[in-house]
Amino acid sequence: MRIVLAGFGVVGRSLLEIVSEQSEELVRRYGMSLRFVAIVDKGGAAVSENGLNPLKALESKRLKGTVAGYPGCGKPGIDTLSILDDVEADVFIDALPTNLRDGEPSYTYLKKAITMRLHTITVNKGPLALALPALKELAEYRGVVLRFSGSVGGGMPVIEFARQCAMGDRVVRVEGILNGTTNYILTRMEEGLGFQEALREAQEKGYAERDPSLDIKGYDTAAKLVILANEVLGIRATLEDVEIRGIEGLDGREIEDAKRRGETIRLIGKVDGGLRVEPTRIKVDDPLAVRYAMNAVAFQTENSGRHIITGRGAGGRETATAILRDLIQVKKFMAGGGVT
Amino acid sequence: MRIVLAGFGVVGRSLLEIVSEQSEELVRRYGMSLRFVAIVDKGGAAVSENGLNPLKALESKRLKGTVAGYPGCGKPGIDTLSILDDVEADVFIDALPTNLRDGEPSYTYLKKAITMRLHTITVNKGPLALALPALKELAEYRGVVLRFSGSVGGGMPVIEFARQCAMGDRVVRVEGILNGTTNYILTRMEEGLGFQEALREAQEKGYAERDPSLDIKGYDTAAKLVILANEVLGIRATLEDVEIRGIEGLDGREIEDAKRRGETIRLIGKVDGGLRVEPTRIKVDDPLAVRYAMNAVAFQTENSGRHIITGRGAGGRETATAILRDLIQVKKFMAGGGVT
Repeated sequence: MRIVLAGFGVVGRSLLEIVSEQSEELVRRYGMSLRFVAIVDKGGAAVSENGLNPLKALESKRLKGTVAGYPGCGKPGIDTLSILDDVEADVFIDALPTNLRDGEPSYTYLKKAITMRLHTITVNKGPLALALPALKELAEYRGVVLRFSGSVGGGMPVIEFARQCAMGDRVVRVEGILNGTTNYILTRMEEGLGFQEALREAQEKGYAERDPSLDIKGYDTAAKLVILANEVLGIRATLEDVEIRGIEGLDGREIEDAKRRGETIRLIGKVDGGLRVEPTRIKVDDPLAVRYAMNAVAFQTENSGRHIITGRGAGGRETATAILRDLIQVKKFMAGGGVT
Repeated sequence: MRIVLAGFGVVGRSLLEIVSEQSEELVRRYGMSLRFVAIVDKGGAAVSENGLNPLKALESKRLKGTVAGYPGCGKPGIDTLSILDDVEADVFIDALPTNLRDGEPSYTYLKKAITMRLHTITVNKGPLALALPALKELAEYRGVVLRFSGSVGGGMPVIEFARQCAMGDRVVRVEGILNGTTNYILTRMEEGLGFQEALREAQEKGYAERDPSLDIKGYDTAAKLVILANEVLGIRATLEDVEIRGIEGLDGREIEDAKRRGETIRLIGKVDGGLRVEPTRIKVDDPLAVRYAMNAVAFQTENSGRHIITGRGAGGRETATAILRDLIQVKKFMAGGGVT
């Protein structure tokens, strides 16, 4: 399977690490031989028809700051669009940083890759939150697989789990804590910290970005909610359909008041007819009331009950594993078995 | 798809209710047309090559206490073995009560059905806990599908979720609260009740059986653990491989002591090399520390973190939905698509 990988940050590098550790096992378990024919980062690309050596690509990044320093295969300055034009491949993987403003440059790359009939995997919430219905239509029209398991919940198989909950049944409501940073801040505020103090701590622990506004203002949660609404409930929604209120206005007194009533305040995203993100009071013994940087998503079904999945929801190696899960589905599709 | 159903208790009846409500939808969504050619209960059977009417079967059970009262199709006194000999079918569904002593009569029925090359679905922990490795081998040898989604967690897609967690990754440890009755009792004891009082309450609420010893002594948890060990970790275990300690010896002081330390005692089944069921102290904010009759199972993976699934874990309609999920997999297999 010939792969073009765009984005060589924590997730992209973790993917190459895992693949190099497990290449034999992937062949044995899934008949899947992964050949990275091009990797692109901000400094340029490394290209090899026969497949790049994962360890050499990682070393080039570590020593020279870009994969374009790969000996003999480096192409400084070249970008993903030219790579898609020039390199023969089966799969495009987008591991670029999220941009919720216009989804670029990922959105353009994804459209081009799908149009060129490459199976496409992204972990990037930006283009999905802004245009998932259009991208799905395009993929269907072109007859290729479009997967994005890592875009919600990091390594947690949230979307796959939801598909299982809907099998022979129907998911009627989705609600969840989809952002670890805000959940960490809310938990620490409950424990007595002020908002700024809790935020600083989240940043020190590496949960929050330097610009944490996407988390705090609820946009990250909203983006993931849009993805779940499309995938799980078949609602053709985009980011502008979500009513969003973040946690920046919360003060300690509200949190104290909830605590006295055996409740806790969490930033909950909910699809229930409409899409809404807002600080919400829930009972402390609700399984959704997870603490610190955890995520939790509840799927209410028609017949089989309310199923909740809980986990860490972030991390490079975790998200890279989600990409691997998507690659296995692509492999199944290419082998004629259909996807699940 | 021609089905023989053995067992017409809460789960079997719920299955027929759901199928009669959703027959058109099942055709539309999965191309699956379900024809019950025989239903067997203690009083005998109802048989029809053209398919029984689910509502008439339910009515016969309600009015006459047995499906053998089905007008024109009733065969009082006939048993499952004769039905398997005489009736042409594609799928055998076992919804009989659990017997953890020797798994009978289900074990004999399952072996016969598989040997006759019927795809086989069971929700019955008895034969699985005692002989899952042998049954799986037999099904593989005969080239049929053997599924048992409803045997663990009721309607929660626990086994399917575990498969997703293992996709491109490896599950290295499983631990969980797999029995709602004991979890209800432990929660109520934490709230101040004595063991006998909490047990009586669980019985009144319909959680515990009249003979609750299988729950209390940990055997029900152990049976489910065996199923997960086989399915998720590939360990060829049976019930006798499990070290089991139930909750009957627990006293209020131990529970009080745990509480003072921010911990809680839960009956945890764990596969981690060996298989063990025992009352275990966990932190109150561990996502596994669910309350009342809830179930929770944690899958620790090598690369993608610790994923936890939480839900009600019991109920007739819920478990019947799990059977439907298995039927969809059988349908996929029959259509040549392989199972997932």
